[in-house]
Amino acid sequence: MTQNIYDDPNFFAGYATLDRSVKGLDGAPEWPVLQTMLPEVQGKQIIDLGCGYGWFCRWAQEQGAAGVLGLDVSEKMLERAREMTQSPLIDYQIRDLESLQLASSSLDLAYSSLALHYLQNIDGLFASLFSALKPGGMLVFSAEHPVYTAPPKQGWIVDAEGQKSWPVSHYQQEGERISNWFADGVKKQHRKLATWINALIAAGFVIERLEEWGPDAAQIAANPALDEEKERPMIFLLSARKPASR
Amino acid sequence: MTQNIYDDPNFFAGYATLDRSVKGLDGAPEWPVLQTMLPEVQGKQIIDLGCGYGWFCRWAQEQGAAGVLGLDVSEKMLERAREMTQSPLIDYQIRDLESLQLASSSLDLAYSSLALHYLQNIDGLFASLFSALKPGGMLVFSAEHPVYTAPPKQGWIVDAEGQKSWPVSHYQQEGERISNWFADGVKKQHRKLATWINALIAAGFVIERLEEWGPDAAQIAANPALDEEKERPMIFLLSARKPASR
Repeated sequence: MTQNIYDDPNFFAGYATLDRSVKGLDGAPEWPVLQTMLPEVQGKQIIDLGCGYGWFCRWAQEQGAAGVLGLDVSEKMLERAREMTQSPLIDYQIRDLESLQLASSSLDLAYSSLALHYLQNIDGLFASLFSALKPGGMLVFSAEHPVYTAPPKQGWIVDAEGQKSWPVSHYQQEGERISNWFADGVKKQHRKLATWINALIAAGFVIERLEEWGPDAAQIAANPALDEEKERPMIFLLSARKPASR
Repeated sequence: MTQNIYDDPNFFAGYATLDRSVKGLDGAPEWPVLQTMLPEVQGKQIIDLGCGYGWFCRWAQEQGAAGVLGLDVSEKMLERAREMTQSPLIDYQIRDLESLQLASSSLDLAYSSLALHYLQNIDGLFASLFSALKPGGMLVFSAEHPVYTAPPKQGWIVDAEGQKSWPVSHYQQEGERISNWFADGVKKQHRKLATWINALIAAGFVIERLEEWGPDAAQIAANPALDEEKERPMIFLLSARKPASR
């Protein structure tokens, strides 16, 4: 069972203050790129893994999705999601992503934003999703980049000229990393980018596009705190397809 | 035209002292993994892009390849390669990889070891190789990892506890990097891993496997200098296939 840090009161309170919590998709600087990686959602059956407040579920429904299922481990997050949701086309369910059972060939799109790096067993999830997708269906997700997750102690260094660098260590040592982000003892999994990609291929997926997201000049001008994200890849975005015929 | 640093006397002399120059494939610690990514070479038509001393060309011929073409920009390297080669099945030619012309559907395998990060125009090369490969043919190559190439000034840092880290900066800023490796002013290109992968996909390739190479415990025991490569990915290995039917 994946750790449910989102129901920790400190974490929940801290997370609620983030731009991506308050403003939804438009508060997530990687969303403009992630959006271009999505297939047409109109008329489609969609699942959102780690849906949180349900921002993506509602966006997909507004774009004409036929049905959206939002899954999360946090009862508190889903409570907020339900409060903000009117459409009967959206359903929210508590579900552990590491033991997901889904009807085969039932989905057009599996989506996930910054949730899968919490999971220990990614191979099992990718096998489940491959089976649950219709031929031609897509998996599009973001996760923390291994350059970001690798060092057990995370922090920028600044040299004499003011140049920021992100010190990478333990990159080859995959497994648990503990961070203290809004709460102590948040457990994440460090996986090499190669491991993510090879796991998708092993499950049967064809890789369609990888992005190692960084801010553009306009985003930095509007939000100078993003400037340091030029120096490292903090998040990666990946789209993969279940082949149309096998 | 790609810079030909290999004909610089200092560079040539320095490069000649490397394990991978003296011992060939067995002197390259990533070779055991790279070898597992290769298709069967017996009876195949093979090209080696940046063949250097021709170690891989001779290995492929010994494994029963039908024909091997080794390409390089360095006349000195090819001179040494020819001195070490007996088989008439191997041909060496001076060729600029950025303006490569090859007969279409003529090759089973395109191979390259630590050469493609010198090229400015990777899209053109991948398009040429895709056309030159037979359906089902493969491209297998290694290159310097973007975590390694990103920082304009490269060097380890060591903290108070002796932990080594590799400071990453300028990751999002792709383009030329100048290093002083055996000679001053060696020009390389920094590209995000995403850029390499998306360029292959854009050319029509299907990604088969990615490895972000690191040493195993036995390699570190035999060569303690490799220990620091646990901390970062220095080299990536990639295999991609031209689909059998299109």
